[in-house]
Amino acid sequence: MSIPAGHAEGARLPQPALERLASYMRCLIELEQAGAAYVSSQELENITGVSAAQLRKDLSYLGELGKRGIGYDVARLRERIAEVLDISHEQNVLLVGAGRLGSALLAYPGWRLYRFRIAAVFDRDPKIIGTTIRRLKVRSIDEVVEANEEFGARIGILAVPAWEAQNVADRLVAAGVRGLINFAPARLQAPPEVKVREVCFICELAILSYQISDPAPPAEGDAAA
Amino acid sequence: MSIPAGHAEGARLPQPALERLASYMRCLIELEQAGAAYVSSQELENITGVSAAQLRKDLSYLGELGKRGIGYDVARLRERIAEVLDISHEQNVLLVGAGRLGSALLAYPGWRLYRFRIAAVFDRDPKIIGTTIRRLKVRSIDEVVEANEEFGARIGILAVPAWEAQNVADRLVAAGVRGLINFAPARLQAPPEVKVREVCFICELAILSYQISDPAPPAEGDAAA
Repeated sequence: MSIPAGHAEGARLPQPALERLASYMRCLIELEQAGAAYVSSQELENITGVSAAQLRKDLSYLGELGKRGIGYDVARLRERIAEVLDISHEQNVLLVGAGRLGSALLAYPGWRLYRFRIAAVFDRDPKIIGTTIRRLKVRSIDEVVEANEEFGARIGILAVPAWEAQNVADRLVAAGVRGLINFAPARLQAPPEVKVREVCFICELAILSYQISDPAPPAEGDAAA
Repeated sequence: MSIPAGHAEGARLPQPALERLASYMRCLIELEQAGAAYVSSQELENITGVSAAQLRKDLSYLGELGKRGIGYDVARLRERIAEVLDISHEQNVLLVGAGRLGSALLAYPGWRLYRFRIAAVFDRDPKIIGTTIRRLKVRSIDEVVEANEEFGARIGILAVPAWEAQNVADRLVAAGVRGLINFAPARLQAPPEVKVREVCFICELAILSYQISDPAPPAEGDAAA
């Protein structure tokens, strides 16, 4: 569960460590934008919710970045984590779906902070193809394989309805994409070398709903318990 | 880590169990929409990625819903999980932020499947206040406390820029909201009785980027494959 010094040796981070690193990264970017030069493990605990002890352990593997009494160098730690996560260089990303969600994603101001760049947007709707959204011309999904010869994107984002998701995933994989972010409520089949991450914000609402529910007997309904 | 029969006794599900239940719920809703009446634990494993053994253990606490050789009754299991998660009754939700993300969230077709209902939309931009988005008139955020006397929403969604998030959170809490879904890249301060869930899709991209990175020194153009 500890974080090795890098992935150059072929060691792979386990999922929980990876998620913690992504969480530190987000926090450090915010701190850097707010002008903070140093941050203590206690402050990081307050923001990320990861215990200072776990945090110090994780970060100790990344090099000598903390100074007793001062804390961690925000910019250097952010750079170091970006290296480990392999997001320290600009990466092209393909977006499929130029509807409301796709447009919202295009408008998201955080891409460049993570050095992601939406290189191209695709849709299948002839009414949308050819229009321009935030300086990007919407292309036909039929062009995705050819287009990605130029962009070399490894990551594709699916912002399409569930019933189109598998077909879009297949096309993205054919275009050389190796990682899919799936916003559609559909479980995708993909070759083993392709990684898929599902984003389900409605699941977050369901979990939240439970967390704020009253533990006291809710009367009728659940009575069988 | 096991799932108790209900929350009537005041027992609270640990986070991992809760996330598994939310994942089963999503899967069951999809299966139900696709017309499936029964599902085996093996099929659920294939879709959710949770092992059939863990799954059977989790679901055994929810009652006699599985039949050997047939599987689980999709509709009944979905209802039972909805009860446990406390999403078996319609719940009003407040949305703050009527920009691109807010509009995308309003257009999301999945709300009713989880019995969530966006009751009202708020913004602070005078140019947007008073306009109508998907049959909802955008209200001023200044009206949120008064409006929620009518709606009684326990959950609020923040689709606002980071620098507005804390102020909006404070107003939602003042309006009686007990759970916040935060899309803004800002860590919110809230009273202990208020639960906050952060949605960070860019973190998903960072994690994915790591997962598809080459552990071995990459040759040119990945040709080694």
